[in-house]
Amino acid sequence: MRWAGGFMSQQVLDYIAKNKNHFLESLKQVIRLESISAQPAKKDQVLKCADLETKILKEIGLEHVQLISTGGYPLVYGDWLHAPGKPTILIYGHYDVQPPEPLDLWKTPPFEPTIVGDNLYARGSSDNKGQHFSHLCAMEAYLKTVGKLPVNIKVVLEGEEEVGGGGIDKYVREHGKFLACDAVMISDTDWFDSERPAISYSLKGLCYFEIGVTGPSHDLHSGLYGGMVRNPLQSLSWILSKLKNEKEEILIPGFYDDVKPIAPDERKDIAALPFDANKVAEGAGASRLISEGTFSSVETNWCRPTLDICGMWGGYEGVGSKTIIPSKAGAKVSIRLVANQDPKKIEKLFVNYVKSLSVDGVKVEVHTHSSGIPFHVERENFFVQKTAKAYETALGKKMVFKRLGASIPIAAVFQSVLKVPVVLIGLGLPDDRVHSPNEKMSLPNFFDGIKGAALAYEAFAEENAKFKS
Amino acid sequence: MRWAGGFMSQQVLDYIAKNKNHFLESLKQVIRLESISAQPAKKDQVLKCADLETKILKEIGLEHVQLISTGGYPLVYGDWLHAPGKPTILIYGHYDVQPPEPLDLWKTPPFEPTIVGDNLYARGSSDNKGQHFSHLCAMEAYLKTVGKLPVNIKVVLEGEEEVGGGGIDKYVREHGKFLACDAVMISDTDWFDSERPAISYSLKGLCYFEIGVTGPSHDLHSGLYGGMVRNPLQSLSWILSKLKNEKEEILIPGFYDDVKPIAPDERKDIAALPFDANKVAEGAGASRLISEGTFSSVETNWCRPTLDICGMWGGYEGVGSKTIIPSKAGAKVSIRLVANQDPKKIEKLFVNYVKSLSVDGVKVEVHTHSSGIPFHVERENFFVQKTAKAYETALGKKMVFKRLGASIPIAAVFQSVLKVPVVLIGLGLPDDRVHSPNEKMSLPNFFDGIKGAALAYEAFAEENAKFKS
Repeated sequence: MRWAGGFMSQQVLDYIAKNKNHFLESLKQVIRLESISAQPAKKDQVLKCADLETKILKEIGLEHVQLISTGGYPLVYGDWLHAPGKPTILIYGHYDVQPPEPLDLWKTPPFEPTIVGDNLYARGSSDNKGQHFSHLCAMEAYLKTVGKLPVNIKVVLEGEEEVGGGGIDKYVREHGKFLACDAVMISDTDWFDSERPAISYSLKGLCYFEIGVTGPSHDLHSGLYGGMVRNPLQSLSWILSKLKNEKEEILIPGFYDDVKPIAPDERKDIAALPFDANKVAEGAGASRLISEGTFSSVETNWCRPTLDICGMWGGYEGVGSKTIIPSKAGAKVSIRLVANQDPKKIEKLFVNYVKSLSVDGVKVEVHTHSSGIPFHVERENFFVQKTAKAYETALGKKMVFKRLGASIPIAAVFQSVLKVPVVLIGLGLPDDRVHSPNEKMSLPNFFDGIKGAALAYEAFAEENAKFKS
Repeated sequence: MRWAGGFMSQQVLDYIAKNKNHFLESLKQVIRLESISAQPAKKDQVLKCADLETKILKEIGLEHVQLISTGGYPLVYGDWLHAPGKPTILIYGHYDVQPPEPLDLWKTPPFEPTIVGDNLYARGSSDNKGQHFSHLCAMEAYLKTVGKLPVNIKVVLEGEEEVGGGGIDKYVREHGKFLACDAVMISDTDWFDSERPAISYSLKGLCYFEIGVTGPSHDLHSGLYGGMVRNPLQSLSWILSKLKNEKEEILIPGFYDDVKPIAPDERKDIAALPFDANKVAEGAGASRLISEGTFSSVETNWCRPTLDICGMWGGYEGVGSKTIIPSKAGAKVSIRLVANQDPKKIEKLFVNYVKSLSVDGVKVEVHTHSSGIPFHVERENFFVQKTAKAYETALGKKMVFKRLGASIPIAAVFQSVLKVPVVLIGLGLPDDRVHSPNEKMSLPNFFDGIKGAALAYEAFAEENAKFKS
């Protein structure tokens, strides 16, 4: 590949081409550290990984490299701020990984990166070491050749992403000025399919509730008290049944008021994607897919708020029969929000609605867990468009714009606190088995991703007058 | 007390009056055996208790005394069949008891019968040793004085009542001829309150179901699949919510078709009873009592079929939040039936109804547990009326006719297999604490119960032409 023009020197691309093995060996070092944030026994390995990333940032040529303490595992920080008048890009990633268990299902040792064909197998290879490392390699290529970057860059890597990310959440809210930038770039998502790289421009917000229904003070004989004492399980079933109807429409009054509608051209684009409902149903082990009202399944999952009962309990769950009116019943409910829904407003609507469904003879309580705001960036955004074009060039494939039914809380936090667009450009493939045994990273995606990042940084610098939105 | 006339000799009443201490000592011997059918370690004690009851039946003067094997603990049988032309009465009781645990809550040793005031404290004193023993004492009084009984009598005592009564159920169904009689008499229930002795003329039947709803083959991420895959917990809530409405009316089509209506005079009698709703609610630890439609609470519990969800489960029940679409959900449901509902018919209605409520995307299965038919004997029945009068005389109190929301399966089995009325004349008091620590039997109830049984046997013989119903 030859770059048609602009700032980037051919030296940069040549460096990337010549240093594949060096990049790979460097990444392998990071992967070999068992940085499992969920396992206290691996604390030493997690901290060693933070130290190694710090060392690498310094070697690349970043400045102000430091570990930032947030109470838990530290943030790894570094920056290069010598491109006056050019945008500042915050690159986010995480150096912690999921536990590798169950170990017996791994075909290669989880922390000994192993190349098989075009893939690098190891825990953390795709989620997220390989992905965020592509950016560090791109920075190195600039700084070791032309000695400067086309844009200002801040790098922040966290070590608690797999355990909730509480530290960085608090840090961003309290130190917005230190992290001030013009855009955030995150490589921690995946492609639409093996042929279609993707930018995820919309993520769900989240509310989570626990409903408790209390009836008699103790379990009662269903004969001696049947029909005389209100059954909390029956009462809970009445409440839960009225959260959604069979068309999957959420019945909480006012719930859809602030939902950003799907634009006609977006519906067209989504409909044009080769979404294979049968394959998704098969992967889920479901007999078929469903959807909300007249929306398609993928529209429902990507663009519409969804509600799920995640757990439900009460009374006798053992074998055989026990004839009781139980004392208590409970349920957990998750709601995934879309732009422009406000979790705090939805929480109020939910609590009021559930309480309004209570019947006499039982007591209904609703507890609210922590919530997350939805994330949405316009596909037309300057940084989104530049990223798309740069990676299309690097990967030789057309970029797909997709949404996600899931949540990446930090993306929404960056957006709402720093007031900047966040570009989610993923290098993962849907079959990377992140969080599962035999996780892998596609090596072509890793190497082309380095070029993509390098081209994107330059593209951001080209027309810097336009990036202020 | 002097008996106005008829067959009974004054000798019989005198014998009962003079032998109170002997009866009590005999009963204490039975109580001292720890015949806990639920505890395998007490097998020896249960068998010893069966042997002792056998010995007592022989000493009284019954014939064909034997242990009948049913696979588990044996039935104790004896008869006296020398009253030609007179009715044959089958007396039922059980010699096994509930476990005494928790032991630290007993104020006196559970198997050392202890008299405090008017009460005999011990496990099994009221349930059922004291109660059935009153009949044996009445028989002894006849046979040791006038040398004969006014009616033919068969006694059958089981040793597995507290563990389900499977043995006697099978035996009655297979040996109906051997147990042939004109009426069954059981003292194993309690009074309406401390001043109102009661005959329980109606008991509930039972159906029991387990509903299973299966969605995806494994728990799914509620973000990645939300709105696309049907949630089994939501689906189950839709089913359960349609079993009853908030007026506690059961919504299964055809469910009420065969329900025997409450006769106007019965409603009047029930309304006249001093039923204390506040006290019942307090005992249940419920904020208030409820009822079905326009029926009163006690009418609902006694005379109307009831339905309760006894257990419910699915998904994540632990602390905190887990955002999943669970793979499976389940619930257990008990239905208490009244005359003339047929459990087999109700089972079919329930299964069909639940399956009709299934939605696409999930699989609904219904498993049926063993069922029991309802029991009902007319209050006007010859044996019921004679029993009421005899015990009113013996106890010096007016008899109350009551129903029970609970089930005593053997009563319904006797009635349906032997095709005879069953008279449930209880000597227990509501505060006897059966199945709980500090169980006791009222001694006046025990002694007056012996007289009541003696008078009832004679009353059955007086007008034997009328008893064929």
